[in-house]
Amino acid sequence: MQNHPIKLNGKPLAGGRLPAICVPLVGRDADALAREAAAAAALGPDLLEWRVDFFAGIADTGQVLAAAARIREAAGGLPVLFTRRSQREGGQPIGLAEDQVVALYTAVCAARAVEAVDFEMANDAAHVQAVRQASRAVGVALFLSFHDFGATPAAQVLQDRFRQAARLDADVAKVAVMPRQPEDVLALLQATLAASRELAIPVVSMSMAQLGALTRLCGWVFGSALTFAVGQGASAPGQLPVAGLRDAIALLQSNPR
Amino acid sequence: MQNHPIKLNGKPLAGGRLPAICVPLVGRDADALAREAAAAAALGPDLLEWRVDFFAGIADTGQVLAAAARIREAAGGLPVLFTRRSQREGGQPIGLAEDQVVALYTAVCAARAVEAVDFEMANDAAHVQAVRQASRAVGVALFLSFHDFGATPAAQVLQDRFRQAARLDADVAKVAVMPRQPEDVLALLQATLAASRELAIPVVSMSMAQLGALTRLCGWVFGSALTFAVGQGASAPGQLPVAGLRDAIALLQSNPR
Repeated sequence: MQNHPIKLNGKPLAGGRLPAICVPLVGRDADALAREAAAAAALGPDLLEWRVDFFAGIADTGQVLAAAARIREAAGGLPVLFTRRSQREGGQPIGLAEDQVVALYTAVCAARAVEAVDFEMANDAAHVQAVRQASRAVGVALFLSFHDFGATPAAQVLQDRFRQAARLDADVAKVAVMPRQPEDVLALLQATLAASRELAIPVVSMSMAQLGALTRLCGWVFGSALTFAVGQGASAPGQLPVAGLRDAIALLQSNPR
Repeated sequence: MQNHPIKLNGKPLAGGRLPAICVPLVGRDADALAREAAAAAALGPDLLEWRVDFFAGIADTGQVLAAAARIREAAGGLPVLFTRRSQREGGQPIGLAEDQVVALYTAVCAARAVEAVDFEMANDAAHVQAVRQASRAVGVALFLSFHDFGATPAAQVLQDRFRQAARLDADVAKVAVMPRQPEDVLALLQATLAASRELAIPVVSMSMAQLGALTRLCGWVFGSALTFAVGQGASAPGQLPVAGLRDAIALLQSNPR
């Protein structure tokens, strides 16, 4: 396929322009999140990602739904991706057991509080299935993701992670890994390109930290549909500021002589 | 080795910062070249490349040396790379036979009119050797280059081109190729990385046109020591404007969070 956009509510994100740009929200409470969402929206991204593992009230579903409403109100019509990143895959420690996390995702979907959710493909198969059902039932898009903050697996392993997401019925497959040497950055791009050609769903990928930062601005050439950029606070190492990232992408797309 | 700078007159180009930025000069006469060199120098590159195949007076060595002096005067101390690109490798048609081109290179070196020369490794071995001797005799650096404006050979073939330059005693090995698909861009980067690790001389590479434009701003991550950017006129497809290129490189090197 290569280079197909993510669809939310049946419409292509960013009007189909690639890459779409996502800004993470990492506020600890609803007030901070509302301010952060308004500031992020002013930067003109295509999507906001609420990293709920940073949210102090994560154990209280009512607080989560109230904060989601505040974010939506501040976001000026931008769609929101809801993500609990596990500690194992680079997220913050939270006080919930995994079945409680699944219950939270289910409640957020049922309330139609967001347009998309990100769930890790390494979770229990039953949990993945439950989140898939809860999201599909209300037309919320499901990102199935894989992160390695320590290293970059071989290109073949990375490609298998994209395939696994597709096999588990994701709407979007996401892979984010840490490079230790430039070869790792090429492995990530190669696997992204192969997966984007092979799979029917959009893929999203990035190589992290300074060494991998180039993937945030040219991953789209190799089929990555979305790139994450910094608003007020980064949620992973290597994220670039929105404005600079957008300028650099425009430069690459300017059809130079 | 990976990531060693080009040296001219025993000093690392751009103070050793990677990538160095080179702006081509494509004027048809000495007045135009002097204006172009002054305008290019104002953009703050590290090197100017005089593409002498665009010069109307190329068949007259006296005119060439006089134009070189005008360029040096206008260049404000920037070093100059002297290049006759052959028609076969993407250059302009000229009225000289190959042995006359070698005589021109020899005269330019003997006059110490420039700091470096670029000669194509596909030329007759005797010609390459003659240019190597003429340049070495006066401490002018020799780039041996390979260009394919139609396609991108396999990574292994590209790596052999870098090796061939080193075997022919180049000071710098340069490879520039045209991508037809994203896989070609990865092949160029992979070969560049492998060559930069293997060889004792600096390597320079680029994948051309819009598809390859990303290599002009992130080739340094994979060991390319120099990138070509547009001043007044591009000399190959895909060259980006100096200012935008520099901003994008600074973004990648900004040690993002």
